[in-house]
Amino acid sequence: MNKTPISTLGEFGLIRHLTENIELKNTSSKYGIGDDCAVLEYSDDKQVLITTDLLLEGVHFDLTYVPLKHLGYKAVMVNLSDIYAMNGTPRQITISLGISKRFDVEDLEELYAGMRLACESHHVDIVGGDTTSSYTGLTISITAIGDTPKGKAVYRNGANETDLICVSGNLGAAYMGLQLLEREKSVFMGENNAQPDFAGKEYLLERQLKPEARGDIIRRLSEAGIQPTAMMDISDGLSSELIHICKQSDKGCRIYEEHIPLDYQTAVMAEELNMNVTTCALNGGEDYELLFTVPLTDHEKIAAMKDIRLIGHITKPELGCMLITRDGNEMELKAQGWQALTE
Amino acid sequence: MNKTPISTLGEFGLIRHLTENIELKNTSSKYGIGDDCAVLEYSDDKQVLITTDLLLEGVHFDLTYVPLKHLGYKAVMVNLSDIYAMNGTPRQITISLGISKRFDVEDLEELYAGMRLACESHHVDIVGGDTTSSYTGLTISITAIGDTPKGKAVYRNGANETDLICVSGNLGAAYMGLQLLEREKSVFMGENNAQPDFAGKEYLLERQLKPEARGDIIRRLSEAGIQPTAMMDISDGLSSELIHICKQSDKGCRIYEEHIPLDYQTAVMAEELNMNVTTCALNGGEDYELLFTVPLTDHEKIAAMKDIRLIGHITKPELGCMLITRDGNEMELKAQGWQALTE
Repeated sequence: MNKTPISTLGEFGLIRHLTENIELKNTSSKYGIGDDCAVLEYSDDKQVLITTDLLLEGVHFDLTYVPLKHLGYKAVMVNLSDIYAMNGTPRQITISLGISKRFDVEDLEELYAGMRLACESHHVDIVGGDTTSSYTGLTISITAIGDTPKGKAVYRNGANETDLICVSGNLGAAYMGLQLLEREKSVFMGENNAQPDFAGKEYLLERQLKPEARGDIIRRLSEAGIQPTAMMDISDGLSSELIHICKQSDKGCRIYEEHIPLDYQTAVMAEELNMNVTTCALNGGEDYELLFTVPLTDHEKIAAMKDIRLIGHITKPELGCMLITRDGNEMELKAQGWQALTE
Repeated sequence: MNKTPISTLGEFGLIRHLTENIELKNTSSKYGIGDDCAVLEYSDDKQVLITTDLLLEGVHFDLTYVPLKHLGYKAVMVNLSDIYAMNGTPRQITISLGISKRFDVEDLEELYAGMRLACESHHVDIVGGDTTSSYTGLTISITAIGDTPKGKAVYRNGANETDLICVSGNLGAAYMGLQLLEREKSVFMGENNAQPDFAGKEYLLERQLKPEARGDIIRRLSEAGIQPTAMMDISDGLSSELIHICKQSDKGCRIYEEHIPLDYQTAVMAEELNMNVTTCALNGGEDYELLFTVPLTDHEKIAAMKDIRLIGHITKPELGCMLITRDGNEMELKAQGWQALTE
């Protein structure tokens, strides 16, 4: 029998391969694999959104420097972010945990405290889950359920030519926070007596350890009467997500390096690490900001909104996905995002 | 800081501890933690059921002797079983996988083939999931979504005094199948040249490796006009599940050893292993049969139904949960079910 290494397909290729030809047969199944959430319909006025994430110790988090309370908070947030990315409101989550013997009750109280805090701040109910022992590391699987008025769900495939491309917040800071934690890891591991040096870098740590799903952006867009044509949350990196939107919408795009939103600390840290800050913003991932497109006619409304940046526009598909650099060159965007399966 | 080992609380105690005082705040959250499924409501005529299960290699399955296709099938079935146990119809699942490097694409095709087969035979759509690498063993997290007409969901807490206690199929066979596989494990591991000896034991293997969620029972109860007052699926063992129903209904029960349904092969295998077959049926688990209670007035209807056995009745709480042995003795039922956290 042939043996094909998984790395030949990559994460997205593997999922495509395993799920090809899956047809939806139930009338309540409106949209399946391929977006931030599945979309189900149980009534005439609302659609139900479902998303799930699996987090494994050693792959997605390192307990050497991630406090359990922060881990719990983030594990919930990344799921809520997927509900918002469909223009929905998160309502419920289920929490499954695989726990190894080195954890005690107090550890789990910390983890749960972070989860409950995240739920409370977004008005989400914990309605179920599963708890079991693990012979290896900590395993966290969360499923989030939300809803959106019928007709309001925003998919990845709705971008139109000339649509404006928008990003909330700023990019690259979570990745810089991760670099910083990795650099100081030896200190956490007790290899010397020094204290980790985070002075002036608190924002980067917060972006990595305590990301905030952008429900506020969803509410403000709704209040401003703006219905995005396509939307995703930025978990793998701007490049990767933009390519998803363009591919699924059968379009191309042009974004401008000078318009990519960066925090000052991100730029300072990139310089310190001798990294290109634009590359960090494009490929860093884990920012959990929203990437979305709106019709050109919404230009004034968007331009007036705080914390949302216009970074480019959608084009014909044959023009590809392009970054216009500060010096006016065109570079093709590549999906170098964080692919857990190919690392 | 105090360190409390998790084993002091056990699985159910830990969940109770971590989730105490959780209030449901969203109007769509109808029932949270504490039953086979959470119950959500998005319309006037239907309720939505959600359940999730986390399966970890080494804890829940042993790939030495479990073929990946069977594992995929079973992983789906255990979730569908939880939907049926609420008197619902499963409609969708999401599948999250953590995959270690020793798996190749063909392995995952096998796993997925089993999952898709289970979904097809129960008319369930695969609508989403998450796929990532794992540094350790295979991790499978499935969430199932189903629905039931409003007012038809059956909880664990609805049993009334004098209700009849019913069980579908037969019990203990899955546990005997596991014992058999464990006994022959050395053969699978290549420690000698013999073939595993399963002759005449095929049914036990099937019950362990390819359990079938009892959607047929749910349909037949509905056709017969029977609405159970309380229901659970038997995953941890009859004793454990009966105690759940009695505790949550604030009742007691009496069940009769002679009425517990057993297959002939289960009895033969128990004898071969020098085990008490009743103990296996009470505590074995993984049968995925349905345990339910019905009003006394349904006695004739139930008695006429194939593949459903009346095993006892519900009593006042102060009478406890009792087994009446073949020789007429009363023994208190104990939850010796398979508790993954305390092993």
